Amino acid sequence: MAEYTAQQLLDIVNTVHVAEGNARVRQITQRIVTDLFRTIEELDVTPDEFWAGVGWLTRLGASGQTGLITAGLGFDRLIDIRMDEADERAQRAAGTPRAIEGPLFVAGAPLSEREVRLDEGEEPPRGEVVVMEGRVLDTDGQPVAGALVDVWHANELGRYSHFDPDQAPYHLRRKIRTGADGSYRFRSFIPPGYAIPPGSPTAELFDALGRHGNRPAHIHFLVVAEGLRTLTTQVNIPGDSFLDDDFAFATRDGLVVTLEPGTPAAGYESLGISAPFTRVRFDFVLQKALSADEQRPEARMDRVAAA
Amino acid sequence: MAEYTAQQLLDIVNTVHVAEGNARVRQITQRIVTDLFRTIEELDVTPDEFWAGVGWLTRLGASGQTGLITAGLGFDRLIDIRMDEADERAQRAAGTPRAIEGPLFVAGAPLSEREVRLDEGEEPPRGEVVVMEGRVLDTDGQPVAGALVDVWHANELGRYSHFDPDQAPYHLRRKIRTGADGSYRFRSFIPPGYAIPPGSPTAELFDALGRHGNRPAHIHFLVVAEGLRTLTTQVNIPGDSFLDDDFAFATRDGLVVTLEPGTPAAGYESLGISAPFTRVRFDFVLQKALSADEQRPEARMDRVAAA
Repeated sequence: MAEYTAQQLLDIVNTVHVAEGNARVRQITQRIVTDLFRTIEELDVTPDEFWAGVGWLTRLGASGQTGLITAGLGFDRLIDIRMDEADERAQRAAGTPRAIEGPLFVAGAPLSEREVRLDEGEEPPRGEVVVMEGRVLDTDGQPVAGALVDVWHANELGRYSHFDPDQAPYHLRRKIRTGADGSYRFRSFIPPGYAIPPGSPTAELFDALGRHGNRPAHIHFLVVAEGLRTLTTQVNIPGDSFLDDDFAFATRDGLVVTLEPGTPAAGYESLGISAPFTRVRFDFVLQKALSADEQRPEARMDRVAAA
Repeated sequence: MAEYTAQQLLDIVNTVHVAEGNARVRQITQRIVTDLFRTIEELDVTPDEFWAGVGWLTRLGASGQTGLITAGLGFDRLIDIRMDEADERAQRAAGTPRAIEGPLFVAGAPLSEREVRLDEGEEPPRGEVVVMEGRVLDTDGQPVAGALVDVWHANELGRYSHFDPDQAPYHLRRKIRTGADGSYRFRSFIPPGYAIPPGSPTAELFDALGRHGNRPAHIHFLVVAEGLRTLTTQVNIPGDSFLDDDFAFATRDGLVVTLEPGTPAAGYESLGISAPFTRVRFDFVLQKALSADEQRPEARMDRVAAA
């Protein structure tokens, strides 16, 4: 029999198989396929609309923006909300709030001990000179020596190295190992906010949704330490007009830093500071890991590539 | 407020906008996003599962297989079923059953008058020599002169030109203009069935679903004529073990042809026939077009690219 109704077809699609496969993949796929069949039927999706969507998905994957659209449609934040809820149910001490990783992390940044200039070799500085400093602590307040703090942010044009042909590899990306007292610090400049690339598949959908694609200024972190749960987060620069209207829904209470005036004669010579600068103090508080899995050093995209 | 529950987040994602945008795109996107939020929550999708899915979608788009997975998950056939149902509701004469286009049509094939060899210049022939012939008719049974019949099929290894570096452009792809009596004919060889490329993103999902990725042997057609509704269809070769188990759900009653013995001395000299061959007779019956839109000459992927 090669003629069937939509419902008969759906039943066949959802049940046909010749081998066991992976029950979980089958379960999730069945659910998504069923929902999409219903959407097509209930919203009376036309062939042209369907194929326009397929064409867009193809362009999205080819452009490498799948991880940008998931952020823009709230999925990345949803994942964080669900992890927060699980922590609350398990009555785990929360530590520093997690924030989405975004699609632009790159593993393997150069490692420094205790301090580094993210903008090393760049004179004059590209913007407002900032030193961010603090400690990595566990949820008991104990300092964590030897923690690895990956930090990355956009350049003065709002672009990230490895995703911008005009920047050298690992530009504005560094990894810092905390000292015996758990301390880290780095010098850089305050990055600007930025928007999704115009003309890209993400911008195409956002234009159709009538949405803006702006993110407020922020700095990304991935903090890993023996026995502690890997923390992925971002801090935001205060005063940005998109702080409460981030296209990626990534800003959070507790992650907007305070900008303080810093004085040059206070031991910042090793970072080349010889004039007034802006100082940000921030401690990262990591949960205790309950499994080896929670201590994984790699971030999201590496796990995806390896999956 | 930068802290919210999953439901609050969903409400924001679905309603936030700064411009009108496209109401239809917003409607469809809201529905799909809402369903995916619910799927993640109700099936308790883990971060690793989510990112594995995102990684797979990226590889799928980058590989150009989005249109292969839609076929394999039944969506292409669903689109046809819905068009059939609309015809039935409108009491339109059906004509030749439509069948899915698949992702491998290429516009611009060389044009011939009334007849052509798809395998021109290839000696000896690569398989069982076949002549397929018939007429293009409208649903009143009137022959249609000057109709354009695009025909394309796989080579003896189950691969299509333009998607296979080993074949010349438009190999086994031709366009035939029907004669005054509506007739067309072409010589080729009977193509084999084939399977989705191993190791590809489509194969990856199919392996996890425990599904095979085989298609029975078939020949594709796209028939266009002034005043008639464009017909996209396929014919199947009888006897293939996957006829009732097509991974793309594309086989249909009324599209399995009959293979007859042909005799060489019956006017097939212009196609280079000098030995017994296999003959297939098939008429294409096209609906009358009710709008200019229904006569569009381009097939699916062109429309998608232009969208």
